[in-house]
Order: sequence, then C-alpha cells, then structure tokens
Amino acid sequence: MHPLPPGSTIGILGGGQLGRMLAMAAARLGLKCHIYSDHRGPAFDVAAATTLGEFDDFDRVTRFAETVDVVTYEFENVPLDTARAALNACPVRPGVKALEVAQDRLTEKRFVAGLGLPVAPFAPVDDDAGLANAAAVLGLPAILKTSRLGYDGKGQVRLRNGDDISTARAAIGFRPAILESVVAFEFEVSVLVVRAPGGETRFYDIPLNTHQNGILHSSAVPSPLPTRVRARALEMASHIATALDYVGVLGVEMFYVGNNAAEPLIVNEMAPRVHNSGHWTIDACLVSQFENHIRAVADWPLGPTERHSDAVMTNLIGDDVDTWSKLAAAADLGLHLYGKNDPRPGRKMGHVTRIGPKTS
Amino acid sequence: MHPLPPGSTIGILGGGQLGRMLAMAAARLGLKCHIYSDHRGPAFDVAAATTLGEFDDFDRVTRFAETVDVVTYEFENVPLDTARAALNACPVRPGVKALEVAQDRLTEKRFVAGLGLPVAPFAPVDDDAGLANAAAVLGLPAILKTSRLGYDGKGQVRLRNGDDISTARAAIGFRPAILESVVAFEFEVSVLVVRAPGGETRFYDIPLNTHQNGILHSSAVPSPLPTRVRARALEMASHIATALDYVGVLGVEMFYVGNNAAEPLIVNEMAPRVHNSGHWTIDACLVSQFENHIRAVADWPLGPTERHSDAVMTNLIGDDVDTWSKLAAAADLGLHLYGKNDPRPGRKMGHVTRIGPKTS
Repeated sequence: MHPLPPGSTIGILGGGQLGRMLAMAAARLGLKCHIYSDHRGPAFDVAAATTLGEFDDFDRVTRFAETVDVVTYEFENVPLDTARAALNACPVRPGVKALEVAQDRLTEKRFVAGLGLPVAPFAPVDDDAGLANAAAVLGLPAILKTSRLGYDGKGQVRLRNGDDISTARAAIGFRPAILESVVAFEFEVSVLVVRAPGGETRFYDIPLNTHQNGILHSSAVPSPLPTRVRARALEMASHIATALDYVGVLGVEMFYVGNNAAEPLIVNEMAPRVHNSGHWTIDACLVSQFENHIRAVADWPLGPTERHSDAVMTNLIGDDVDTWSKLAAAADLGLHLYGKNDPRPGRKMGHVTRIGPKTS
Repeated sequence: MHPLPPGSTIGILGGGQLGRMLAMAAARLGLKCHIYSDHRGPAFDVAAATTLGEFDDFDRVTRFAETVDVVTYEFENVPLDTARAALNACPVRPGVKALEVAQDRLTEKRFVAGLGLPVAPFAPVDDDAGLANAAAVLGLPAILKTSRLGYDGKGQVRLRNGDDISTARAAIGFRPAILESVVAFEFEVSVLVVRAPGGETRFYDIPLNTHQNGILHSSAVPSPLPTRVRARALEMASHIATALDYVGVLGVEMFYVGNNAAEPLIVNEMAPRVHNSGHWTIDACLVSQFENHIRAVADWPLGPTERHSDAVMTNLIGDDVDTWSKLAAAADLGLHLYGKNDPRPGRKMGHVTRIGPKTS
C-alpha cells in the first residue's frame, strides 16, 4: 500500500453532484480536489481547484493530470481517450477498462455473461432486419436500448407484439442497440462494492431500489433479500470488480427474481462510479460510499461499511426540490441539495435520507 | 421566518477548520460560502469564493459583505469594527453583541453573573496592587487570565501562596486580566445550544470534556451528568443565548461541581461559534452542529439534534496526526483531517470520532 499523504490532490473528471459529494468526502480526509469539467457544475463550489475544459482537449487533460496525484471520474461516459490522456501523467482509478466495459451495453452484457453471471437474454441490433431477428429469437415484449449514452431511462423503448420495428428504432434515433428480454422480477437491488488497489473488497448493505419514470426514486436498507441471496449478490459484484481489476466504488444493479430460481439474481447493469443508490450511506454509515471511493482511489485503508441506522433515500427530482423548507423541518430527514439553479423536469436536484434505529 | 433560498451565499469571517466544516455543512444544503480571512486557511479549499484581506480593512469587509446574503464568523476574536463593517451591508449572525461579550473575560463574567448564573469568584486585575488585592479577596490558589485573546490555555498562569505577584503578571505580558478562584469540580461539560432568529432553541446532548496541556483532548456522549443537572445546564445555556439575542450555535463550558451543591454547575466560559466539543455531532447526529449553525444563520428550520450513536471525539494535536493511516484503518473511527500542512505542537490538525450503539 502506498497511500497518498493528506494534502495530496485527487483529480476528478466531471463536475456534477457525484463529483461534489466526492470532493466533500475527500476534504473530510484532508485531501484536496481538482475538478475538470466542460461546464461549471455543482462540484466547482467545493473544490480547491477547478479547470473548465473540453473532454476531448487531450493535451489539457494531460496537463490537468500532471497537477494532481491520481485521477478518478464521476460519470461513466468519460471518453476512453480522455482517460488515456490522464493516464499519461498519473494513475486513473477505477481504470480505463471499467469505462470501456460500462460505456457499451453490449460489451457490458457480454463481459458479465462471460464471467458466468446471469443476465437477461439479449441480442445486438444494428438495423431493422437485426431487430426483427432479435425479436423472433428473444420473444416479445422486450426492451430496445441504445448501446451507448443511455441513462435514467433515456434511449429505451419497449417493443410489444405488433409494434412496428422501424418506429421502435426511430424512437432511439436508429442508433446501435441491444434488445433485452423483459425479466419478471420481484424487486431491484444494487450492490455497492468498494475495492482497494491491493484487491481488498468491502460491501455496503444492499438497498432495495424503486424507480419512477425510469429514474431512481428511492433506495431502502435493509431490503427483504434473503440471507443466502444477499451472499450471492456480494459474490457476483465481487467477481465483476475483481475481473475489472477495479479500484473504487462500483454499483451493480440486479433483479431479484425470487428465491426458488436456480439463480435468484440477474445482473441488470453496472456503474463504474459512486452510485445514486448509495447516497444513504452519507447519513447511515460512519464512512460513506464517497469517502470509501476516495480512500480506495488514494490507496488508503478502506473504511467501515456497516450502517448504524436503517435508511430510506429518496431523490428530489425537478420541482420536488421546491418543498425544501418543509423537508428541512422534518425530524428524521437528512437533506442534501446539490446547488443546481434550474429544477428542470427529470433533473436530480437533491435527495433526502430518512433514518431510524437499526432493526436488522 | 425568511429563509435564504438554496443557492444563497453565506459569508464567513475566518478560514480555519471551523470555517471549513461550516462550509462543508452549507454545501450539503445547497448554500454557497464565501470565506474572508487574512491568510489562506483550511476553509479556502472547500468554498465557492474566497477573499484574502485584512480584518481591519473595513472597506474591503463591507464590499465582501455586499456580495453575500448573511455574514457569520468562525472565531470569537473578530474585531467588533470588522463585524460592524459587515453589518453595513447585511445581517451578521450570531451578532456583534455576542462577540463583544465573549471577547473579554471580564465582560463575559459580569454578563453571566448579571443573569444570575453561577460563575467562579473573580476580580479584575490591572496592576500589581490590583493582583495583590484580588489574591487577598479571593484567596489562593487562583488563576490569572488575560481578559482578551486567550485560548487553549494560553494567557493563563496559576498563582499559589508565596508566588511573586509581578512574576505572575509578567507571565501574561502585564496585560489587563482577571483573577479567578480555582473551582473544585468533578468534570467539565459543555452545552451546545443552537438558536434561530425567531427564538427557537435546540440542544445537543451534553458532552463530558477532558483537557491535556490546556487544550481540549476529548468530548464524550453520553456524559454521567444526572438528569436534573442536565436540564439545569440546558436552561442556563438557553438563558445566555436568549439574553444575547443569539443566532447560531453557542458553546457554553460548565464545571460540574457535584449534585449536592445548590448550584451543581458553574459557567466557565462561552464561545460564540461552533465548538470543538461538538465535533462528534458530525458522525453521531443526522444534522451536525455545523449544519445547524448554518441553518440558524440562514433562517432555515433548525434540524434535529438527537444522536443516533454514542460517541467519543478525540482531537489530533500536532504530530498526533502522523498516525493517520493507522487511524484510518480502525473499524469504529470517523477520521477528520483539516488539510493543514504543518503539524506544529499544540496545533489542531484533525479529530477522530469513535461511535458505538446508543446506550442511553
């Protein structure tokens, strides 16, 4: 272990709320942050240094990386060449491979399936004929998703029997895509695993996630996941993290299909970064997912991941945030606002965490 | 109530670790901070805006205050004219009166005694004759303390029978002083009260404080303070806060002299700011003293002050901080480093909070 000493600087590619919460966690440890982003995001208000630069200005990215001790990122769509430009000057963690895999649904599915882990049946779709063929093989209904740059339910369309193939492809801009079978599941969970450069892994408790309009609505711990299934979930996430030689926090979303199935869990998707479903760790754990990501990236000892409280995190989307003063007055809510000015529909403006005594 | 909306800016006079933790708490609520200080302190690394300026550059202070929505401070020795210069442009909270009272031990003792609250017997000392007289009236041993600018045990000397009067005064630079009787107490506690502009007050649990070399060493909750005494402590602190028309967090140190005394508690001193003995609230409460100070200053609803865990906060003084990687590896410690470069003896470099299940 070669931990970066306090006073070292973590470079963060991206300046959104995840970067903001990472920077605040780094500050707690006496580490500085330097944010690099193409626009002034919420992270700019809490960082020791900031650079406004394009992500494809690779010289600039390299020069940025020369001023810091390690580079991490807060969004999975960092261009690979941007990450490589940083890698010219210093370590990049979680790493380029994690980005490469997570940026493309097809690559990701093949990667996860290649590890022997269950995923929903899928097929690549490049044109109308490909979609017709995939629909015939997988059966309908199924979900057509763009391979790249989809998030929060964007770039997805459900295909039912009788739907027009070409209309469905038009709805996602005729982009390269995959068709995925619809999985009948009881609920969605996510595993938040943190892995150190030396290979040690730790896990937070597994939240049950609910969505509204394709966007995460809430994450609750404890979940009703049976103990045996819980252990399997951790094993699956650990398998993925190790295969990627991952460093930092990795979020792996899984569908729980029931305890009678041979494989009770199906990997839905992963995010090579701190994850919205782990925001409750700020209020319910001594060391949050953000701090443990920073610890891993800086090669510090990983912190405890136990929670001291039960917790339900709920996102504040768009004008949900208008109720902030009422939320601030609640006796059991931790209120987190991201410092964004414009509460556009679908935009994550903040979150609240309701905590209560630990029940299990 | 006229709460400052999210996105508003809090001006903070002073850039030390208290300013740093205030700025991080403000960021959690979507509020920006602008730090004003005469040197680049730890708060500069986490603030949206910073100004390097002298505290007696009153025009500059007024211009700074014009750019923010409210001004607060993180040290009690902000010159009164500096606070007044800010007050030309915006509200200053906790307020000028709190500074005036807390900056001068004599004024503070008289103020607290004037409220009918118990303090150690004291007498002002301006010269050798005054000290001889005070010693005769109060009896020895007693403690000679400068009236102004003493902290962490500095500017104090113990006077015993037979000690030379002039030598004692020389030890504190012949400055205006007070002589205080030595109080025989069981332990020291502190009350952390937060008061809103509308007058609402809330309290954190009362920690037991220990000192080493005149500097706070640890603060632990729960303390063994009897319930009746606890209620009296809150009442006393509330009395002081109300008399000052105080806004924000006020720390009031008290000596517990035993449950058989008519007055079980004696007010030692107060700090018109967030207080080192309240740092455990970051890890053991949903809303920390820092966040509640910001909430009060911004006229937001006060947050809950209950703790979810037992806690012991221990300061990292000087080269204590060299053990950071060992401390980071502990399973039950929250580690906080202030981003200071130079671990001089006596300097507060960080703190750790050990938390455990709530026992009472």
